[in-house]
Order: sequence, then C-alpha cells, then structure tokens
Amino acid sequence: MDNPVLVEVTRGNTVESRHRGSIAIVDADGKLAFGAGDVEQGIFARSAIKALQAIPMVESGAAEALNFDDAELALACASHNGEDVHAKSARMMLFKAGLTEQDLMCGPQWPKHMDDCVEIVKTDDSPCQLHNNCSGKHAGFLAMAKTLGIPTENYIDFDHPVQAEIRNVLEQMSGGVLAQDVCGTDGCSIPTYAMDQQKTALAFARFATGVGLDPVRANAAEVLYEACVNEPYMVAGKNRFCTEIMDIFKGRVFVKVGAEGVFCAALPELGFGVTLKCEDGSVRGAEVMMAATIRSLLGLSEEEEKGLRTWEHQQLKNRRDILVGEVRPVADFKRLLNTI
Amino acid sequence: MDNPVLVEVTRGNTVESRHRGSIAIVDADGKLAFGAGDVEQGIFARSAIKALQAIPMVESGAAEALNFDDAELALACASHNGEDVHAKSARMMLFKAGLTEQDLMCGPQWPKHMDDCVEIVKTDDSPCQLHNNCSGKHAGFLAMAKTLGIPTENYIDFDHPVQAEIRNVLEQMSGGVLAQDVCGTDGCSIPTYAMDQQKTALAFARFATGVGLDPVRANAAEVLYEACVNEPYMVAGKNRFCTEIMDIFKGRVFVKVGAEGVFCAALPELGFGVTLKCEDGSVRGAEVMMAATIRSLLGLSEEEEKGLRTWEHQQLKNRRDILVGEVRPVADFKRLLNTI
Repeated sequence: MDNPVLVEVTRGNTVESRHRGSIAIVDADGKLAFGAGDVEQGIFARSAIKALQAIPMVESGAAEALNFDDAELALACASHNGEDVHAKSARMMLFKAGLTEQDLMCGPQWPKHMDDCVEIVKTDDSPCQLHNNCSGKHAGFLAMAKTLGIPTENYIDFDHPVQAEIRNVLEQMSGGVLAQDVCGTDGCSIPTYAMDQQKTALAFARFATGVGLDPVRANAAEVLYEACVNEPYMVAGKNRFCTEIMDIFKGRVFVKVGAEGVFCAALPELGFGVTLKCEDGSVRGAEVMMAATIRSLLGLSEEEEKGLRTWEHQQLKNRRDILVGEVRPVADFKRLLNTI
Repeated sequence: MDNPVLVEVTRGNTVESRHRGSIAIVDADGKLAFGAGDVEQGIFARSAIKALQAIPMVESGAAEALNFDDAELALACASHNGEDVHAKSARMMLFKAGLTEQDLMCGPQWPKHMDDCVEIVKTDDSPCQLHNNCSGKHAGFLAMAKTLGIPTENYIDFDHPVQAEIRNVLEQMSGGVLAQDVCGTDGCSIPTYAMDQQKTALAFARFATGVGLDPVRANAAEVLYEACVNEPYMVAGKNRFCTEIMDIFKGRVFVKVGAEGVFCAALPELGFGVTLKCEDGSVRGAEVMMAATIRSLLGLSEEEEKGLRTWEHQQLKNRRDILVGEVRPVADFKRLLNTI
C-alpha cells in the first residue's frame, strides 16, 4: 500500500513539499492499536533502537561493574550532538573500562552544531571519534566486551559476540528473525537490520512495559528507560527533539530518532510502542510525525502542549530570521492514524 | 494525481528510502514532450530560476556598463558554495557598481563545505553576506538598480522596480501570472512564486532556444546561458552537481538546482526546457532525477556517460568511508517519463 502524506511544508500560503510515512502503534501483545501506511515493510531502525542495543551491556553486568551513571547510560542510547559534554562523557566511559578513543571504530565526525565546530577549530583541534554521534553506544559495546573478557577488536562485526547478543535481544523483543540477507552497514559501521516495522514497535511496547521479557531483561529495559528520561540532554543535546520532548514529558515518553527518518517511542502509561518511518528519509518529516502521534495518543498539560507544539509546527525562518513557512502535520493526521 | 517514486535509496540489499517527484519536459511551443507526476501543480522554483532572474540586469545594459565578465554573470545565476573565489567575485561585482557588502540584503551564511568554514574560523573571521549562496544574484540586482539610477534600498521588496521587472520577465517567458497570492519569501528574502511546473519548463525551453522572445531578451538569455556553461565553477563550486554536469557537457546542457528539491534545465539541441520537483524537498532525490532525465533525453559520449553516472548512482559511504548503499533512479525511470 502507498504511504499517505502525513506532513506538509508551507511557504507563504502554498504547500511547497510533502512527506509521506508509515506509523505503527502496537501494544505489548503485538496488536496494532493504530497505524498508517505500510507497517509490514522492513525498515532499518538505525539509531532509533540504540536503547535496545544497550540492553546486553546492562544485562551482562558491565554497566554495574563499571559504575555507569544515568548520564553515561543515556549516552549509550544517544545520537548526541558531539558537544564537549558528550565527548567528555564518552571518554570517561572508555576510561572506566580501561580503554581509549583509539579503541573506537565509529569514525570521526564533526559536531552537529556550527558553534561546537568553531570551538574545536579555535583550539587548533580536530573532531575525533568521541565527537561521533554514536560514541556513547560504541563505548558501551566496548565496555561490555572488556568486562566479559571477550576481544574488544572488531566489536562492530556481524559475528562478534557483542553484535550476536544484540541480535538475540532484538529477535526476542520483536519476534522477528534477523539474518545476513536483511543486514546493512550503519553510518557508524555496525550491522543494522531491515526489521518489520510493526514487530519493531512491539519491541518498544515490551521496552515500555516489561511484558514478555524475563526479569533480567525487563530490569535492563527499565534501567535504560529511566536513564534516558532522567538525562535527556545526554541522548541528543541542544535544539534537539529527543532531548526537549523527554525533558518536557518528565518520564511519560521515551523517544529516539534514527537516520533516514525513523523514530521509535515507548509510552508506558498506554503500554504502547511506536515506530515511524518517513518514506523519503527526512528528519523534519519524522519529527513532525512523532510530535503529532504523541498529541494523538496522550492528554497534554499546558506545558507539554506548548513544548510539543514547537516541534509539531516547526517554524521555517530564512537567513535574515524572517518567518517564511512551517513544517506541520496534515489536517487529518489523527484520522489517518486510524486507517489500518 | 500522485507523484510516482522515481528514486530509491538502498542500504545493503534493501531499499531504505524513496523519493517521489514530478518532471515536465516541454518544447518552445509549450507542448509537454515527456512528463511524470503532477506537472500542473504550482512549484516554487526557488534558486533554480536564477538565470531568468538575471535577465533584467543584462537587458537593462547594466551588465555591459559594468563590464561583468562571464564568471561574474555566472555568479549572478549561482547558488555557490561560499568559497573564497565566490565571495571575492561577489565583492568585485559590488565594487564595480560602487557598492559594498553592506548594501546586500541576503543575510550572512556559512560556506557549504566544512573546509571553507574552517578557513574562515582560522583567520578569525566570520561568514558575511558575500558567503551567502545568493550573493552574486543580489549583487546583480543591486548593479541593475544602481546603473538605472533607481534606489538600491529595499531591492528585495515585492514592489521594488527590480522585483517588478523580474516578475514581468517570468510572466512573459512562462505565460503564467504571478500575483501576491502565490508569492512566498525565499531563503535570501526576495519574492518567490508558486509557478505552474509545465509553464516554468516552457520558460526554460525559451531560454534554451530564444523562440518566443524578442531579440533583446533572446540575446540576454544567450549571454547568460553561455556565461554559465563557460564558467560552471562560479554557478556552484566543488563537489556540486551543477558545476560538474555543465563542465562535462561542455555547453550541451544548462542545469540549475533550487532549494526544496527543484531543478531546471535547458537543452538547446532538443529545444527542451525541463523542470522537476522532488515532492519531499530532497536535493539528493532531485539530483538523481535530473541525471536520469538527461540520460533519457541525450545521447552520451563516453566521458559524459562516466561523469553523469556518478551523480545518477550516488554512492553512500559511512564515516569510515565504507560503501553502504546508493541513491539511484528506479528501474523503470525512463518508462515513467512517458506516463503523461
């Protein structure tokens, strides 16, 4: 089935661009509660599932053995901006495990925002692997390997025990099968899998509720959920959807973006997991879809309403700061969520 | 009508994202020769019509009076990278008109590529309006106003004589009507109009051929076409589609990208004008659509084939330079161009 237009981009009085997408909202029994578009397609959830990829590190006891605090656990689930606070925290995670930046295999990356890039240039430095938005996740992988006494080398390979254990967790939580034929390589060089969108949402319903998980896994999920909602700045940083939404909602929602317009969410009070994919890979499209999905599902306080609205109706300003348009949900967004 | 999927983004063996679009290929009589999608929609052609917006400057005699060379005329049609060569050329255009960077109203902008940003920071400088990708266009507007003795202040306003004359040119060449209700504000603060996609393609067929234009306008179109294909580096810069394609095709094609996934082209040997719009506003989608359109229409030399292919099948590499996928036309792209 075709994915419906869910988001429109305006300029003046005219719609200039459109974003289509698919959204799956699933309970912990795997039942599709609401949805739009083709939710049975395989989607690469990319960085949106970092919290699930961090579960083996917690289950293995590595996080506890190394005294990772909430900020460090949140960084393990992060696509951070590469701000100074993020790079330093990643370095500390590695230090606690007896490792350094040299052990990372994610590759270097400039920080997301220009002011942080300028700071690096002004100190005659250059961006390193600690600035890579995935450095916390990789530090977590390495910490797990080191603590378990397995080789840290090539921890990014499909057959390395760390990646094999992540695959086990993803398969158990989603009920899907992840084999080589649906495997691609992520931006940070680890395996990423084209997973059934509805089943991935089930994994997040289980992440939100613990239903269907053994006690050790349920505890790991809870530890990571709490870390992210307690330290949302470590999950992304300034001017970022995930940080601001988790900050505003104070534990009611977990949200995590991924590359190519994917988003995952966990809503414990409803017992729902959410996955959405903006068909064209746009982040702005995915952000507005997620904001509008949250509005459709949750009753909002005044503060939540105000904070959500800035991400649901994103103002477009030009280079002289003149308002020229907005990115917004289509008028019948909520009705479209009921079309499956 | 729905716009078809024209471009797909792969990761491993799987399609990860999709781009839809509309393409109009029109002859100088306004007849649609080939097309796909909704080509009767209004599209903001944004920076893709900079060459048409530069016509009044040439027609008015300002370009000749100020001795603008091909590089400067190409810069007036450019969305440049803000490299040193572009900023200096924009400053020289203003200098020739007795003006400075202070007269610009496009706003400051960081250069497109990080290495040029680093150079600015290292010299304790900051980006100015000369680095704005539209600085050459704005310098052209100011040069025209100064030469004609009309006020240079507020040259970006809907009612300023420069913008009114641009509107006249666009209306004559496209056969459309551009009024306030279809007017939005561009990234550089000038008016931009939601123009019928097919009619905008007609304007580029006329730009390519001179058919339907009075001799002064036909001459201005030819002068600007020649300037851009002679000095393609000034139209964009390093690692850019417009520069590389015009460089390779040595005068056979004029191409120009605009924000939000629009592209225009002029193909004199066929007498065609082309407009395309990637529905979601993606530049990568628009680039691949334009490359595949050129392949569908023109016979290619070995060198043209090789150069075009790198933009038609764009390799996606990750942060460790590993090939992870590609952006490519759908298999039946050429057939889809015949669906209108």
